[in-house]
Amino acid sequence: MSSSRMLGVVLFPGFELLDVFGPLEVFANLRAAAQFRTCTVAASAGAVESAQGTRAVADHAFADAPRLDLLLVPGGMGTRQEVDNAILLDWLRARTVDAEIVMSVCTGAALLARAGLLDGHRATTNKFAFQWVASQGPKVDWVRQARWVDAGRFVTSSGVTAGIDMALAVVARLHGRELAEALATGIEHDWHRDPSWDPFAKVHGLV
Amino acid sequence: MSSSRMLGVVLFPGFELLDVFGPLEVFANLRAAAQFRTCTVAASAGAVESAQGTRAVADHAFADAPRLDLLLVPGGMGTRQEVDNAILLDWLRARTVDAEIVMSVCTGAALLARAGLLDGHRATTNKFAFQWVASQGPKVDWVRQARWVDAGRFVTSSGVTAGIDMALAVVARLHGRELAEALATGIEHDWHRDPSWDPFAKVHGLV
Repeated sequence: MSSSRMLGVVLFPGFELLDVFGPLEVFANLRAAAQFRTCTVAASAGAVESAQGTRAVADHAFADAPRLDLLLVPGGMGTRQEVDNAILLDWLRARTVDAEIVMSVCTGAALLARAGLLDGHRATTNKFAFQWVASQGPKVDWVRQARWVDAGRFVTSSGVTAGIDMALAVVARLHGRELAEALATGIEHDWHRDPSWDPFAKVHGLV
Repeated sequence: MSSSRMLGVVLFPGFELLDVFGPLEVFANLRAAAQFRTCTVAASAGAVESAQGTRAVADHAFADAPRLDLLLVPGGMGTRQEVDNAILLDWLRARTVDAEIVMSVCTGAALLARAGLLDGHRATTNKFAFQWVASQGPKVDWVRQARWVDAGRFVTSSGVTAGIDMALAVVARLHGRELAEALATGIEHDWHRDPSWDPFAKVHGLV
């Protein structure tokens, strides 16, 4: 555990906008209260187009990224291609060795699963694409109803806005509940504090 | 009302990440079900640094932006400078003439207020910086407790994640409740459908 943590958020073509910027808002706003920094990382530094069309800028290429204490992998339609991207999967495996916590939002769990990182661990993903994601990691203990699952080093969330709730839970784990509550209030977010809250599992017939 | 609407999201240095990407996620995901397009606009095309450090790409410069049917103005610490930016305020005034709906999230309302656009209208803003924003528009009918305020052409939301709830309400107004519900479920969002839901007004002593 370092006193000044760095979060790296992975970008790839077709990433889901809010999977990235929900958690990033939470973690970046931590800068005022704690030693915390954030950056974005992709195959190449520069603009990366999201699934929604809007482009965000990757601060670093994979090869040049600084040491990352926390790692966040978003979902989005781009994951359908990235599950076969050996360069990305190798990078995720290599960087997980040094990381204190590796997070995913939505179908980002498919990338961690295909990298073999979630084998033997409890994990969740979004409920719309649950079967596809689960098929990417047959040795993963997939949780069908969960807002997020904290399995220690790996913390995986359900779809899109679930990433905001997960990020606040990780802040609570690292820096205490009081700071997480202050951050939630700061962004006027109705934080779902219970990781088992998940009405969307029922909507998609998973329970 | 056009059959194919274009939403323009304004970027400026120090914009709040989630003020932009919460609503943009909602509106961009509308593309599959309705004739709808989105773009980002700033003083110059290219990368713009957010209040949180991460950079997003403006698709168009103010002068080159296409016709915009919907306009969205985010908040963020950058608004403290932008309230004195005559170029931005002039552009907002000019583009409001053609716009069907002009939205703000958080302290983005300060920019609409300083442009004089909200004079005589009901509007809200985030609750942490409420007094500062209200001081930017003495002729605005500021609502102290509201998740968002729909005043017809102007729809203003409270802080950060309130923008997601407002965006879904605007989708419901334009395309019906059923589509808005489907979008909320798609992003696994606990949509606050009641615009008067606002516990944060009390937290900040506004009620």
